[in-house]
Amino acid sequence: MAYTKRRSGLKRSALVAAALAGSASAQTFRRTAACPNLGCIFPPDQSAFIAGQVFDLRVEVQAPANGTMPFNNGKPYDSFTLSIGKKGQELKDVTKAFSVVDPKLSSYNFTYYEDLFAQDAKTPTLVNVVAKDYRHLALYDPGEYELKLKYNNGMEETATWEVLPLSKKKLAKNVILFIGDGMAPGMTTAARLLGHKSVNGKYQSTLALDKAEGFGMQHTHSLDSFITDSANSATALMAGKKSTVNALNAYTDSTGKPYANPKFETIFEMGRRIYNSQIGVVSTAYLADATPAAVVAHTSLRSQYDLIIDQYLDGVTSNFTWTKWDGPDVLFGGGGSDFVAKASNRNVSKIDKFLAKGYEFVTTNSSLFNIGNSKRALGLFSASTLPTWVDRHVFPENLPTFKAYNEANKTFTAPSKDVPGLKEMTLKALDILTTRSKADGTNFMLMSEAASIDKAMHIADYPRALGELLELDNTIAATLEYLDKHNLRNETLVIVTADHGHGFDVFGSADTKYLKAAQGNDKKRNAIGTYVNSGLSGYQVPEGVSPQNNTVVTGPWGEGFPVDWQPRYTAAMGFAADVDQYEDYTTRNKSRTTSLTKLANGTYRADPSDAPDGFFISGNLPTTDDQGVHSQVFTWGPAASLFNGMQDSTEIAQKIAAALDLGKDHNATARVHGPRH
Amino acid sequence: MAYTKRRSGLKRSALVAAALAGSASAQTFRRTAACPNLGCIFPPDQSAFIAGQVFDLRVEVQAPANGTMPFNNGKPYDSFTLSIGKKGQELKDVTKAFSVVDPKLSSYNFTYYEDLFAQDAKTPTLVNVVAKDYRHLALYDPGEYELKLKYNNGMEETATWEVLPLSKKKLAKNVILFIGDGMAPGMTTAARLLGHKSVNGKYQSTLALDKAEGFGMQHTHSLDSFITDSANSATALMAGKKSTVNALNAYTDSTGKPYANPKFETIFEMGRRIYNSQIGVVSTAYLADATPAAVVAHTSLRSQYDLIIDQYLDGVTSNFTWTKWDGPDVLFGGGGSDFVAKASNRNVSKIDKFLAKGYEFVTTNSSLFNIGNSKRALGLFSASTLPTWVDRHVFPENLPTFKAYNEANKTFTAPSKDVPGLKEMTLKALDILTTRSKADGTNFMLMSEAASIDKAMHIADYPRALGELLELDNTIAATLEYLDKHNLRNETLVIVTADHGHGFDVFGSADTKYLKAAQGNDKKRNAIGTYVNSGLSGYQVPEGVSPQNNTVVTGPWGEGFPVDWQPRYTAAMGFAADVDQYEDYTTRNKSRTTSLTKLANGTYRADPSDAPDGFFISGNLPTTDDQGVHSQVFTWGPAASLFNGMQDSTEIAQKIAAALDLGKDHNATARVHGPRH
Repeated sequence: MAYTKRRSGLKRSALVAAALAGSASAQTFRRTAACPNLGCIFPPDQSAFIAGQVFDLRVEVQAPANGTMPFNNGKPYDSFTLSIGKKGQELKDVTKAFSVVDPKLSSYNFTYYEDLFAQDAKTPTLVNVVAKDYRHLALYDPGEYELKLKYNNGMEETATWEVLPLSKKKLAKNVILFIGDGMAPGMTTAARLLGHKSVNGKYQSTLALDKAEGFGMQHTHSLDSFITDSANSATALMAGKKSTVNALNAYTDSTGKPYANPKFETIFEMGRRIYNSQIGVVSTAYLADATPAAVVAHTSLRSQYDLIIDQYLDGVTSNFTWTKWDGPDVLFGGGGSDFVAKASNRNVSKIDKFLAKGYEFVTTNSSLFNIGNSKRALGLFSASTLPTWVDRHVFPENLPTFKAYNEANKTFTAPSKDVPGLKEMTLKALDILTTRSKADGTNFMLMSEAASIDKAMHIADYPRALGELLELDNTIAATLEYLDKHNLRNETLVIVTADHGHGFDVFGSADTKYLKAAQGNDKKRNAIGTYVNSGLSGYQVPEGVSPQNNTVVTGPWGEGFPVDWQPRYTAAMGFAADVDQYEDYTTRNKSRTTSLTKLANGTYRADPSDAPDGFFISGNLPTTDDQGVHSQVFTWGPAASLFNGMQDSTEIAQKIAAALDLGKDHNATARVHGPRH
Repeated sequence: MAYTKRRSGLKRSALVAAALAGSASAQTFRRTAACPNLGCIFPPDQSAFIAGQVFDLRVEVQAPANGTMPFNNGKPYDSFTLSIGKKGQELKDVTKAFSVVDPKLSSYNFTYYEDLFAQDAKTPTLVNVVAKDYRHLALYDPGEYELKLKYNNGMEETATWEVLPLSKKKLAKNVILFIGDGMAPGMTTAARLLGHKSVNGKYQSTLALDKAEGFGMQHTHSLDSFITDSANSATALMAGKKSTVNALNAYTDSTGKPYANPKFETIFEMGRRIYNSQIGVVSTAYLADATPAAVVAHTSLRSQYDLIIDQYLDGVTSNFTWTKWDGPDVLFGGGGSDFVAKASNRNVSKIDKFLAKGYEFVTTNSSLFNIGNSKRALGLFSASTLPTWVDRHVFPENLPTFKAYNEANKTFTAPSKDVPGLKEMTLKALDILTTRSKADGTNFMLMSEAASIDKAMHIADYPRALGELLELDNTIAATLEYLDKHNLRNETLVIVTADHGHGFDVFGSADTKYLKAAQGNDKKRNAIGTYVNSGLSGYQVPEGVSPQNNTVVTGPWGEGFPVDWQPRYTAAMGFAADVDQYEDYTTRNKSRTTSLTKLANGTYRADPSDAPDGFFISGNLPTTDDQGVHSQVFTWGPAASLFNGMQDSTEIAQKIAAALDLGKDHNATARVHGPRH
């Protein structure tokens, strides 16, 4: 058996007593990410770097006062040394290797629970820490590096890093990274079933995704957990580094603070720094949400919305030195209420700050294409997440419950009626980015996210989630057409990937008429048709017609969308990981906000009013959430084939960097850009 | 938007009243597969053929006596015409086009329920039918064909067929088709999590599957339902035709009989007919099971085990003319009790029939490698399905509950102790096939199935299912090594695919110690750790060690398998489609046979004794089954890249045929083979 060992120098050995002693729990809760022993190095063992990628280096030395791994009465030793060198060569002290001054030692403590039993018993473990941060470093010479931390009077920790090879050839000038948030393989299947007709088992048309030139899958494990969230996974996609749940382009250290965490540069920041790239960010989420934020933000806590918007505008400021950043060229999405003046952000309007920098500001679909293409642009089309494609196209009567910009009082309180979708925002972003990069003689990098695939899935509103996926597919087709039309196809790498999955699948059909009429859970469950009784998709046939009918009809929403969103025979679908719920497998006229009701005792229970004709399904989760651990990757254009097959999530950013030639050695002169116009 | 229309000449139009009238139900139950109107053509509209692929052609004309679509008081017209021609050319009567005599008209009736309401009300619809079968036809000239059926005094039905282009170049000589039955993407993820260690989120070793040279996905829809079963999907993989649930290389006509159904040739039969290929069939299932049977069997009903074994031996006999078949060269698997003499198969021992043809016969692992490689071989290693890898390696005390061959009385009643797995059977099959094809100057075609991935998943025994997947992965690595060693790698196409998925995924971890100790469903559910609380895999660390420990250890079962099958922190996983069940997320010492108990009222309910420490999860299915609708495809060797990206299930067989140059025009002389030796 020839298994590739990815970790060079790694010992596969009989049990080494010293290495394996203690720390018997620390799985559900961990003392610190990527730090099984008492000395921690960030970036941790196994990290890979694009040559020249800027990063912070942090060391923590810990001493638990109690618990299963107490050390020295909870007193960490103040003195420790960290050395680094190319594999096989002499190691030098980090201050010498990077020519930096030795930073100040910080000291603090924290508590954590070792496991669920400790949590129930309320017996936390106290840990004292000393730490140092070495800011704004970079490694330029490709190859393997070794780090050695000597600490706590005799303890030792090593880490292996890799600086990736320099590109032999620049394959692509521009990149468009589409993210279908939470888009698991089963959802692509379901979306195809809703949006395209099969006759005798063969599709008569297919998704744009089905025609990708490159196709692969990625592993999405976190640094310290195998289930990722969108912050963590977006970090892997945009910076090529594993991190921790909730963290954006930074490591979750043990301070518990979201500000000064050790950071690392994203490929978008690198593109701006090296090539003065035009950067675009488009999302159907609120713009402070994790996935769009991951283009430029650095914090261990994704919920720091105010900080994130400040970082969009000015990058990391304060005293944690970072690369220059002067704002994106396009920023389109929802979440306007995070940008308006309010007490919680010192009554400063972020919108005014963008305006002061000369941004165009747009808040409706009809005005979106009226602004020019030469200036930078901020578009805020809703108070929070944008209305879904289904609400915009099938149930527009729901739109006013979303809130649009109220010009009169500069808040997001107006009824929403005139809202763009992912396609409109993406195409306008491309207009601006291509115009500006042509004028500048530079390139562009665009991230465009279909956010509500995930958001609607989290509340088990499957049809709305699949509508978002079909809109993404439609946007991809329109984008490829745009690139063709503007002769940009052969210099633009297009990537479509999920950031994580969900354990979601279609498992049969539901006769919704029978389900509604039947009495009692058991009888209602008989409405589910599996195997031969699943039949063909009902979404592609007009009302009153048999799904078996071979005629292909285009419905009111055009090709690639259902002819009927509420057919009698729907797809029965759901999650491997579920909360309790009532389900009737219909497209509901109104989206639910949650499938759960909080009871007086603090637990959540399904609300029958959610699906009055449905049946009850009990779940297997303690929370409202679930995440699968694999994702699809679709690619077009130059370097598309780089993404074929199985790969780690961090390789996506690394391969984009290779295609765009972002890795630079010491000899390359990085172009320094002036202020944006 | 540039959506490819796969169906040429298809009208995307406003609703055509005539085409859409009637047949408003017929989704859960259908009158006849691929026959929305009253005239049926098999092979149906949208069928594709490898040039020269032999098939039967059947026409049915139906007339319902009642229901929503009654016609002519239930009397079909006896006279109808069927004509065929190249697209755009004049159509000829089929008897002329194929130079065959007009077959005898048959006449019968059947009943069916139009929907679940009709089933509850016990109001079946009666349908009278007249039909004709045109046997043993072939089309040699690539291109599109049109068929026109004129029937019932003015009705008309058309079908479009495609004969695929001839190969420009033979890319591969041999093919090995591995089928991971039911192997959904989430299972590959889960198997990787169990069998390989990740340190700081990065795998230190990977699956053999992860290193595939080609990688794609397939759509698995049936001819008339979007959820497939293993018979139906294996038919697509092995003959390149969509069929119906339960059908093996035949169409499910309305006779309700499993014998005389219209058939079509498999690529294995074509290889034998054209190149006198050595054919091997290996499965961990009973050999009459759908997937191995699909190599050569033809019936609309997969449960016809006796018929299937007869077809292994002699092909389709009786008066339904078919291509010559004289038995496979290797037939290894379980299901011995289907081969012994018993009243139900007229006391004929199928084993004796194989022996009479000169087959070696082997029943144990230790004797498997003692037989020579020059003769054909039958290996029956268990009464039914073979014991799983987990039972053979982790809990061998379970082996005697499986039954082995009892030499004394020629039955499968001996305690099972000496049983091969997929790897041993596959490597011995390769020894025989390569020896024999070298001696003959021919090639070989091997189908090898890891059947119990699916079988263990169906009873929600996730760890046993994943053990089978890891054994498949280990077998693939060993097979590639074998091909390298014998200089066969560059002439052998290796394909690994699932035949269908399951809506399965990993969604977190379970602290099994806490789950066992906690009281009550809600409290037990708190043992599930999602996101950051999922931690890293516990299966790769010895007992008492933290999963966060970075040391990589090889356990007693070698690389690529868990170090510990019963760790404290396990993977929490499950299905989107579930029956009721109790779950504790452990590897159970004994496999359950079903997760359900049948109650007196005919319904099924979960049995708490199945997982006494577990919690209850209610399901959403009316039956015990579920199936996902997408599958992975991994390939190595010549033509591997043909299988990249998204494809239809039928394209797998078609691409193998193209790679092996199985499509032949009229000018090619098919080699006629003599009896096997």
